[in-house]
Amino acid sequence: MGLNSFQTSGSSPTATRCHVALLGFGPLGAALARRLTGPDSPSGLQLTQICDRRAREKRAREADAVASLAWTERFDDLLTSDAHIIIEAVAAGEPASDYVRAALLAGKSVVTVNKQVIAHHGAALLALAERQGRQLRFEAAVGGAMPIVRTLSDGLAGDRVLSIDAVLNGTTNAVLTHMEHTGCSIAEAIAHACAQGFADADPSADLDGVDAAAKLSVLCAIGLGVRVAPSQIETKTTRHVAADDVSNARERGATIRQLAHAERTDDGGVTVWVAPRVVPAASFFGRLSGGSNGAVVRGRYAGEVTLTGAGTGTYAIAVAVLSDAVAIARDRAAIVPAPVIVEPTAIRGLDDQKITNIREAV
Amino acid sequence: MGLNSFQTSGSSPTATRCHVALLGFGPLGAALARRLTGPDSPSGLQLTQICDRRAREKRAREADAVASLAWTERFDDLLTSDAHIIIEAVAAGEPASDYVRAALLAGKSVVTVNKQVIAHHGAALLALAERQGRQLRFEAAVGGAMPIVRTLSDGLAGDRVLSIDAVLNGTTNAVLTHMEHTGCSIAEAIAHACAQGFADADPSADLDGVDAAAKLSVLCAIGLGVRVAPSQIETKTTRHVAADDVSNARERGATIRQLAHAERTDDGGVTVWVAPRVVPAASFFGRLSGGSNGAVVRGRYAGEVTLTGAGTGTYAIAVAVLSDAVAIARDRAAIVPAPVIVEPTAIRGLDDQKITNIREAV
Repeated sequence: MGLNSFQTSGSSPTATRCHVALLGFGPLGAALARRLTGPDSPSGLQLTQICDRRAREKRAREADAVASLAWTERFDDLLTSDAHIIIEAVAAGEPASDYVRAALLAGKSVVTVNKQVIAHHGAALLALAERQGRQLRFEAAVGGAMPIVRTLSDGLAGDRVLSIDAVLNGTTNAVLTHMEHTGCSIAEAIAHACAQGFADADPSADLDGVDAAAKLSVLCAIGLGVRVAPSQIETKTTRHVAADDVSNARERGATIRQLAHAERTDDGGVTVWVAPRVVPAASFFGRLSGGSNGAVVRGRYAGEVTLTGAGTGTYAIAVAVLSDAVAIARDRAAIVPAPVIVEPTAIRGLDDQKITNIREAV
Repeated sequence: MGLNSFQTSGSSPTATRCHVALLGFGPLGAALARRLTGPDSPSGLQLTQICDRRAREKRAREADAVASLAWTERFDDLLTSDAHIIIEAVAAGEPASDYVRAALLAGKSVVTVNKQVIAHHGAALLALAERQGRQLRFEAAVGGAMPIVRTLSDGLAGDRVLSIDAVLNGTTNAVLTHMEHTGCSIAEAIAHACAQGFADADPSADLDGVDAAAKLSVLCAIGLGVRVAPSQIETKTTRHVAADDVSNARERGATIRQLAHAERTDDGGVTVWVAPRVVPAASFFGRLSGGSNGAVVRGRYAGEVTLTGAGTGTYAIAVAVLSDAVAIARDRAAIVPAPVIVEPTAIRGLDDQKITNIREAV
């Protein structure tokens, strides 16, 4: 059999490409639009429409390849368009879950980058997607470019996952790494992260663990099959880590990381928390630097599987979004069953458990 | 929306389960049969039939849950059975690619653990699967429990992968790690690996890099989209690594690993090789010990994504097989397009390139 048979297969660029509409044209939306119209555009996808509240103004600043697409300020225009996939990349504060629900009801498949949408409404929205015969994918919502959603949902579907330890907030990791390298205060490290574009002006949700808790809630559902709301996750802030804490840790060959932990307990419960922890400098998490994300997943049968990837950076995050869109485009009629999720018998926090894999608290 | 809607969704154990037939009842086949009939059996799968040349004898040694299934010595019985999935786990030396082709032609989806089948016949078999409207999955063929096939095919589908560096042979890694820890000769380390069940009596294919080259050929196809036959990959044996080489490396803060490398070159070619290399002891590969596998994938947009997982052990490998079977069972009508693969303009080896990421040759 000749190779030409593959070059003319269903995924070829000459086959009908899957129409994609983009909702939200912030920094990530702009990166997505440029990728989808650029030289390395993933095969099978065609960006056809962009919706943003400030469409006119933003369109005027774009080069031809993006500016020449159909732009709109009305979300309804996407719902009535011929797009098969809507990529939801709206700014925080917008009613993203309403958009996702409306898109699914309009018969669109959706890729969302929004961890809060999945953490709070994922179960209902995934069930809606299944009923509609459409897909809702969200790899970019957790772990950035690290393919943790796929690994838990697909790669370890044949195992029984016992625990997940992870660094899920790239901003906080960049702040802690900068303190480690320079000996500066956390305020200075935050200012540095802001200057580098790693952090918002107010990175409270990052440092306080709200961001990581939402992501951990998603991983509890898809990895452990248990429902844990973000508000049920004990969360200790990283804001009070002082330069002295970091230097004391360094003297003992250790460093500080914001870890997220979820683990089954024998009674059908789970232990879940997000907190700054002292970890050996040479350990998996100690070596995770800058805006990286990382995860150690322990399965009953596979043992440990580890993953790392960029947790910050619009082009890195865009890879996760586009990979989801490619998966949808490959098989538009695919059936993706909603995950089976049960209520845990108990939800415990940091102080209720024997600490494993981690040396000691800050 | 109540949670009960998920517990009664399509993936529920009460829905019709996907019938699975097992071809080959060696150590891996036995682990698969026990998992599929055990307490953590992945949802949606039902093992119905087992085929092995010595079915009678092997059946007699199994406990009821496995022994009570339908056993046969005739492969044709699987083809005419109602199984939707055939798991191909036959011993080396059997005509595995013929079995896979026959299964696809009979309308079965196939999960294979056989890297040689995919390295040599993957393109043709994947195209056949697509034409038949069936799936051929092979996560277990490369990287053991590390989900590298999914990561390249799906998780990074939205990127342009530039290079792959990996430890793909758990046996060789266990041998080198044992030398590092004990200072022993490679012959002693091989004997130790055999005694621990990590290695066959003749681990030539492992040490010489034949095993890793077959796996790297598969990764070139699915990750870089280029056709590189295993015989086109320059392969240097690890057999001649001496205790002195390991101790010399240690004195410089380094150690030795069998690395597999594939990288795009600017002229549309690839550089590919498998060889023992000196790596810093504290590096990603230096820290990879025992039977582990690990990979560093570099994408133009996502940057580095790393993965590790068990490369040896029947229950770990079984996780990869079962995860593939779960993926097929979730959507039996899914369309999985064969990857688009092109001929590279040039294939270069170890000595033709500037060495990146790696300190120096042995």
